[in-house]
Amino acid sequence: MAQTTEGKVLNRPDLETIRQAHERIKPYIHRTPVLTSAAVDEMCGATIFFKCENLQKVGAFKARGACNAVFSLDEETASRGVVTHSSGNHAAALAFAAALRGIPAHIVMPSNSPAVKKAAVRGYGGMITECEPTLADREATAERVIEKTGAELIHPFDDYRIIAAQASAAIELVEDVGELDFILAPVGGGGLISGTALAVHYLDMPSKVIACEPENADDAYRSFHEGHIVPMENPSTVADGLRTQLSDKTFDIIRNFVDDIVPVTEEEIVEAMRTIWERMKIIIEPSSAVPVAAVQFGKIAAHGKRVGIILSGGNVDLGNLPF
Amino acid sequence: MAQTTEGKVLNRPDLETIRQAHERIKPYIHRTPVLTSAAVDEMCGATIFFKCENLQKVGAFKARGACNAVFSLDEETASRGVVTHSSGNHAAALAFAAALRGIPAHIVMPSNSPAVKKAAVRGYGGMITECEPTLADREATAERVIEKTGAELIHPFDDYRIIAAQASAAIELVEDVGELDFILAPVGGGGLISGTALAVHYLDMPSKVIACEPENADDAYRSFHEGHIVPMENPSTVADGLRTQLSDKTFDIIRNFVDDIVPVTEEEIVEAMRTIWERMKIIIEPSSAVPVAAVQFGKIAAHGKRVGIILSGGNVDLGNLPF
Repeated sequence: MAQTTEGKVLNRPDLETIRQAHERIKPYIHRTPVLTSAAVDEMCGATIFFKCENLQKVGAFKARGACNAVFSLDEETASRGVVTHSSGNHAAALAFAAALRGIPAHIVMPSNSPAVKKAAVRGYGGMITECEPTLADREATAERVIEKTGAELIHPFDDYRIIAAQASAAIELVEDVGELDFILAPVGGGGLISGTALAVHYLDMPSKVIACEPENADDAYRSFHEGHIVPMENPSTVADGLRTQLSDKTFDIIRNFVDDIVPVTEEEIVEAMRTIWERMKIIIEPSSAVPVAAVQFGKIAAHGKRVGIILSGGNVDLGNLPF
Repeated sequence: MAQTTEGKVLNRPDLETIRQAHERIKPYIHRTPVLTSAAVDEMCGATIFFKCENLQKVGAFKARGACNAVFSLDEETASRGVVTHSSGNHAAALAFAAALRGIPAHIVMPSNSPAVKKAAVRGYGGMITECEPTLADREATAERVIEKTGAELIHPFDDYRIIAAQASAAIELVEDVGELDFILAPVGGGGLISGTALAVHYLDMPSKVIACEPENADDAYRSFHEGHIVPMENPSTVADGLRTQLSDKTFDIIRNFVDDIVPVTEEEIVEAMRTIWERMKIIIEPSSAVPVAAVQFGKIAAHGKRVGIILSGGNVDLGNLPF
């Protein structure tokens, strides 16, 4: 059993737990397609398999974790609802999953969140509680919701129910295309890359697992190399899904099972995003472009290799594109 | 055997010819995915299956027809190359198919064609011959290329090799999802809808085949109802792929095998395009949005029905979006 640097015990999900999570969520999520592009392969000098979580329910892999968390609650706990503090894809995913189970979803969002994000949460039936745009007030507000309602807190990534389910994207990818030399995913809070790394580890595959991160928000890169979580305040990157930092649970898995962390620049992210839109005719959000940029701009030794990339999401504001 | 109003004999492709075309092109094209969206179904009140030809090679169904035409040429004819006059997806598709076979592709394009379209053709190895932006000069220039090179003219739609192969998209759709109440496709020159209607006819399916067209370029609608090809000069529509008019071969098939033609407004096209981008995270060009608009805005009695829509292409200029 692993421990954090502060001595907290960490019970990483095992393969059986991951398999159970996958079976639990299958009725509620898409088995997303794996797409390929000869044009992108030629540009990158590799054979790339894109696992299209941008085509997932709610437009992001987050539907996997949220569905697992919500559907693994016992009846009594579930009846009191769920709560999270997030303004991104996890908020919409939790509202979506809660609606499927017919239970309340309380979403704590900063009062200055974009109207389009609030509308997405409300569109899935989520109930928004506004707070000040500070982490302290987000947590305090969530606490008040819990005291009042008894709702279960579902953290976006520091939760093994979430991590176990995020592993299912990599499992499906490998089931569909076979062995890969590299599997790449973006890293923000680390839920997706942790799940991916655990899946590769348990399935005993030779694939190298690479976390990809904006240079402008390289807290995971620093944490990985310094051996402890390096905090980062308000990083400035176009990849809005990757501005969060690692947690105890995700850092433990990343430091043990991820092979490398690769930073890319803002210009590379936007260019890679454009490559996918233009060549593959699918919409990806900037966070998804981060691992694409790592291959397109030669940050990993992928030449001639078989590379899997998890395209994490496709939620963008069409009125505010970076190109 | 059918005849045109001028008495020309028309040998419509039979099922065997369509099957042969499909087998011929399979090694060169994608079997494109059929995607669904609960959110779009709810907006439209129907169960919709989207055949994603926007994810096809060269970003459009045109790859099907071009590959069939190029790979059905005998060796000697093929060695002299192919020629077409088009500035759209057919031009890129013909260059793509010719490159696969290793033969020259001569593309006659108006001198005022956008640089991005010329670049696409050159990117696939096509050789551009510029002409004046009139139909007369396009045809005359193509004639000169033929005299000089002996290249085979491959018309974008008035060619049964093209029509037979465009039928394969509907065949794959029905193979994947089973019987449908409606199958919708856009109509410009009529190659895609002709092939679709022939496929439904030969496979003896109960599906109604609906051609969808911009109100601002409703020559097919008028032709269908007046019983002869009604010409239209320079129609103004955002659906740039649908500005062409029907030919003898496509009109013959449409009047005999298409159940109805439905016009939609420019506003409806743009709104439907946005719906697909936002809800399905895939990039479609305005022409593809035309049949989506027909369902979204209640132009056909699709409520509660199973509807197949062929999303014809995904080639857009990201720097010049209509929303």
